[in-house]
Amino acid sequence: MSAPTPPGHAVADLLGLVALGELLAFDRMAADARLAPDLRRRAALSEMAAAEIANYRRVADRLTALGVPPDDAMAAYVMPLQAYHDSTEPRDWAEAVTKAYVGDAITDDFLRGIAVALGEPDRQLVLDVLHESRYAEFAAAEIRLAVAADPTVAGRLSMWARRLVGEALSQAGRVATADHGALTMLIAAGGDVDVAELFRRLTAAHTARMAAVGLNN
Amino acid sequence: MSAPTPPGHAVADLLGLVALGELLAFDRMAADARLAPDLRRRAALSEMAAAEIANYRRVADRLTALGVPPDDAMAAYVMPLQAYHDSTEPRDWAEAVTKAYVGDAITDDFLRGIAVALGEPDRQLVLDVLHESRYAEFAAAEIRLAVAADPTVAGRLSMWARRLVGEALSQAGRVATADHGALTMLIAAGGDVDVAELFRRLTAAHTARMAAVGLNN
Repeated sequence: MSAPTPPGHAVADLLGLVALGELLAFDRMAADARLAPDLRRRAALSEMAAAEIANYRRVADRLTALGVPPDDAMAAYVMPLQAYHDSTEPRDWAEAVTKAYVGDAITDDFLRGIAVALGEPDRQLVLDVLHESRYAEFAAAEIRLAVAADPTVAGRLSMWARRLVGEALSQAGRVATADHGALTMLIAAGGDVDVAELFRRLTAAHTARMAAVGLNN
Repeated sequence: MSAPTPPGHAVADLLGLVALGELLAFDRMAADARLAPDLRRRAALSEMAAAEIANYRRVADRLTALGVPPDDAMAAYVMPLQAYHDSTEPRDWAEAVTKAYVGDAITDDFLRGIAVALGEPDRQLVLDVLHESRYAEFAAAEIRLAVAADPTVAGRLSMWARRLVGEALSQAGRVATADHGALTMLIAAGGDVDVAELFRRLTAAHTARMAAVGLNN
């Protein structure tokens, strides 16, 4: 069953959120790359950042094609997304890769969940801008290395990951307000999206990911 | 006439310099993007930064293929290149785009000049990582806008550009020392590279570029 086409401004709102998420993820990962212990790792996180901006361009171009200036579509989300990043500035490399690992995965789960509410070509676009798995593998390997080198790090990173999720949820509430309910309407219009179920799946997947790198939820 | 093949470690030294230049240019442009007056411009400079890291990956992969860990090839240049960026931190958007405009162009002139000293596939690789002209066009347009909005800005940006070139030349001396003369040897081995002539061309091209955006050399 294909979903009914959601109203255009709700689609633009969602794409605006996705675009700004990528623009700010680029900005923060690029800055966090300075925390890397060597140039190889610094380059790896820099490349993860660069992938975000390539995806930003695709989403921004789609907004322009829809007749919506990307800046307008993004404006409402600047405060909550900036607040998320400001409140979760990593203090070291392990925190930086944990933030990338946790943040990318939750973003992808959210995008997969929301894609079903979209008509084409937006559905495919949102699926196309999911993060490449090699980036998650790199981040996971770095977290495992940090934990292996010092087992006490696991507790600190577990707490850090909980804070990341907590801050993300807190700002998600402000995002829902910021867009005047367009995203909620989009989800409702999609029909196929069960918000409670989406939230349950997001949480379960996050717990599994934490366990996979030796952290506790 | 094709150039004699330069010694392998000189090629690795040159590629290490190119790779680190790209990694640090990525880092600084990504940070400078925060100075943008709106999200569209911020994204544009972020995309310029992302292009650097894509080129970094190509050069780093070539170093790995040559059996040289990229970190080793880059190590000697960290101090002078970092010093260049530390001493030329833009204070506003106009200075940021001027730095990108001036820095990218001089880098490209240097790469074109040095490429003739290299054998294949390194010669083509170095030519491939030249900056796309659309980035220079974006930066030039931004400089012209800033000067048009406030003619007194031309004087300040002209002075800023002179400082950029001065700091670059000052660090270039340290680069030549840092690599124990390998680059100099490479240039000498290339035969086709006339250093004085290269320098003269670089300066003339820079002067023309300054005039093109309404600045004085």
